[in-house]
Amino acid sequence: MSPKSREPLAVPELIAKKRDGHALTEHELGRLIDGFVDGSVADYQMSAFAMAVFLRGMSFDETVAMTLAMRDSGDVIDLSRLAAPKVDKHSTGGVGDKVTICLAPMVVACGVTVPMMCGRGLGHTGGTLDKLEAIPGFRVDLSIAEFRRQVGKVGCALIGQTDALAPADKRLYALRDVTGTVESIPLITSSILSKKLALGIDALVLDVKVGRGAFMKTKADARALARSLVRVGRLAGKRVSAILTDMNAPIGLTVGNALETAEALEVLHGEGPQDLRELTYALGAEMLQAGGIVRSRARAERMLTQSVRDGSACRKMKEIVQAQGGDPRVVDEPDRLMLVRHQRTVRAANDGFVAGIDPLEVGYASMGLGAGRSRADEAVDHGAGIRLHVRLGDPVQAGDSLATLYSSNKALLAPAAKRTAASFVIDKRRPSTSSRIIEMLRR
Amino acid sequence: MSPKSREPLAVPELIAKKRDGHALTEHELGRLIDGFVDGSVADYQMSAFAMAVFLRGMSFDETVAMTLAMRDSGDVIDLSRLAAPKVDKHSTGGVGDKVTICLAPMVVACGVTVPMMCGRGLGHTGGTLDKLEAIPGFRVDLSIAEFRRQVGKVGCALIGQTDALAPADKRLYALRDVTGTVESIPLITSSILSKKLALGIDALVLDVKVGRGAFMKTKADARALARSLVRVGRLAGKRVSAILTDMNAPIGLTVGNALETAEALEVLHGEGPQDLRELTYALGAEMLQAGGIVRSRARAERMLTQSVRDGSACRKMKEIVQAQGGDPRVVDEPDRLMLVRHQRTVRAANDGFVAGIDPLEVGYASMGLGAGRSRADEAVDHGAGIRLHVRLGDPVQAGDSLATLYSSNKALLAPAAKRTAASFVIDKRRPSTSSRIIEMLRR
Repeated sequence: MSPKSREPLAVPELIAKKRDGHALTEHELGRLIDGFVDGSVADYQMSAFAMAVFLRGMSFDETVAMTLAMRDSGDVIDLSRLAAPKVDKHSTGGVGDKVTICLAPMVVACGVTVPMMCGRGLGHTGGTLDKLEAIPGFRVDLSIAEFRRQVGKVGCALIGQTDALAPADKRLYALRDVTGTVESIPLITSSILSKKLALGIDALVLDVKVGRGAFMKTKADARALARSLVRVGRLAGKRVSAILTDMNAPIGLTVGNALETAEALEVLHGEGPQDLRELTYALGAEMLQAGGIVRSRARAERMLTQSVRDGSACRKMKEIVQAQGGDPRVVDEPDRLMLVRHQRTVRAANDGFVAGIDPLEVGYASMGLGAGRSRADEAVDHGAGIRLHVRLGDPVQAGDSLATLYSSNKALLAPAAKRTAASFVIDKRRPSTSSRIIEMLRR
Repeated sequence: MSPKSREPLAVPELIAKKRDGHALTEHELGRLIDGFVDGSVADYQMSAFAMAVFLRGMSFDETVAMTLAMRDSGDVIDLSRLAAPKVDKHSTGGVGDKVTICLAPMVVACGVTVPMMCGRGLGHTGGTLDKLEAIPGFRVDLSIAEFRRQVGKVGCALIGQTDALAPADKRLYALRDVTGTVESIPLITSSILSKKLALGIDALVLDVKVGRGAFMKTKADARALARSLVRVGRLAGKRVSAILTDMNAPIGLTVGNALETAEALEVLHGEGPQDLRELTYALGAEMLQAGGIVRSRARAERMLTQSVRDGSACRKMKEIVQAQGGDPRVVDEPDRLMLVRHQRTVRAANDGFVAGIDPLEVGYASMGLGAGRSRADEAVDHGAGIRLHVRLGDPVQAGDSLATLYSSNKALLAPAAKRTAASFVIDKRRPSTSSRIIEMLRR
């Protein structure tokens, strides 16, 4: 510790500096985060600082300094002894987003290593951890040592957030959640990247979702977040790219944990809905390029297709499931996933075309069936959820089945059915449909 | 309690509403303050809210609602049974500001009642409570019952801040002090007025200081604060006026508790420095007019002069001192005030005119002698301080005595002497001097 860093930290002055719109130095931000972790900066000071950042912003250099300080608040995993490129993917969250489950084994089969931390569902959005836990026996609470070992041996491990990695981010996020300071691009950027950098990655591909079911509602906001993530990640020395993707309808035809896992496994068998496959291949191609495995997108997509055709992606998924204590037979036999007893059908009230499926309403309906949480400490019903029978643009007739709802609790079906029915827009004219891929940001 | 007010309070949403620049309703602000006091709104939420207010502001209506909610967070003293008008004075704080000590007995002798809460010194500014405690035996920790009784009997009581009155303000101020959210006009306004309104006043006269030794450094800032105080006080149903006064040199010729009390007592005997008398008479005239005792300033000043000439102001001061346990002989014999052993003279280095006496430097020099505090929990040396021998505009020759320093601790004299010497500007040209009264704000 240098003599300078032992001076008492003038926290109110640092907060006031940001409040007045000035940039904080790397040293100042480092000491603020260190103080937050060691308790010398109080929660009420950090929340005032977060509000000042929310309203005054931070430069890219400040965001890098904050990111690195948060990364260094806990263990930083060193995977440099592994020869393969370490590449992670992060999605800003949506409805029906099961991409990680098919994407990870495919890219690992193609030669990259994927050390990945996944989240839990909250509110209308699902979480990869909950989906994985629909596989009987699957453990996500690996220790750091287990995580490192599995990444080295299998090429991939999927764990939950842990106090060992970037604890400053975990504490700051909890504080932002209750102080109206979540939606700040520099704070979101440092939150996402600090955790990812602590995992020992070389490169990162971001899926920044935009639309009604996403955190970012407009392309301008999503683009600003994507640019910040790409720029700050690069300034921190990593290869980072981002894809803006549409989140105005649920991804694929399932929402809910076991249902989504089963649908992701279909992709590993060369099946599954077209939009899910498109997203998986686009993100996978970015990961292979970011990892330096291939130079062109076309070549990357051919490799991914080959991993499905030759069964190597399926084999890799079985290895991952087995390594984390799950039943690998699930990969070929999705009926082994956790099932539920009660179901109910939602039908079309009139003739026309499916012109909209509100992802927010479907997300909340699925949560209402028991598949999600309104508070972080609630348990989930892994078999609960919604299977859609139609996609955007499909023609329907009154009485046609639009969706089937599943729950362990029969009483939850009726209100969720009402909500699901209301999420459909049936129009006389056939709507135009388009790709989920909006744009790529590579620099 | 109405059904509406029993709904759970969505604190993050309220914070976000202010963060996004929207006005909060009276109901929302009331519930926020109530929740802060009952613990359902956490410190880290209140500090984020304070930062949002700092950067987004509050309307006058919002400030009134916040003021009344903070007033109602504790006891509200009802003095309506007293026939005399209840008028208080508040100063935003300066160096050498002993005005309350001579002002209060003069206006009470003229027929107003003064229920007053005073502050302690902190940093470069002194506090009336510390000055009063330089009187042997003087107690400022009256109970609310004692306070009410004394106000009724003597017409005046001077107490310190208590947890019984406006506890929300005390807690919020402590939070603002450590989160860079002090200098916000709506927050300062509600802080000052909530305490004053809890004292049961009818009218309030504000001394808003401006300049190097004041909280507000520019006239524009001071005027904005004064306007906010006057407007919000009136919207809360009180007669409020404000005087902007200059704080670019210490008031009078003394800084330090016993020294200042002695100087204030001189004014009650028809003596004392001209600038202190000018301030006292101007503020006193405003108080008599605000209390409806007289209509014109000229008539008010004649009444105040008469209270000094006929000895009624002195007699009233003795009553106040006696009622609060102090030795009333001090009023005629200021040598009975607490004295100290060690002293040192500061001399002019060159010939010229006194062109400046930096109040900030003199304030810190006095604090350095033991007269003030750097932290709220420190004790003060009541006899310590600085007596100036020259005023702005006075001619001096090298070697002339500029000031005498007093302290109980001899070792503190040398550094304070250096600081005091540095606070003087001696110039070849005679500077122009002017009144401390800058402007009056009545509506």
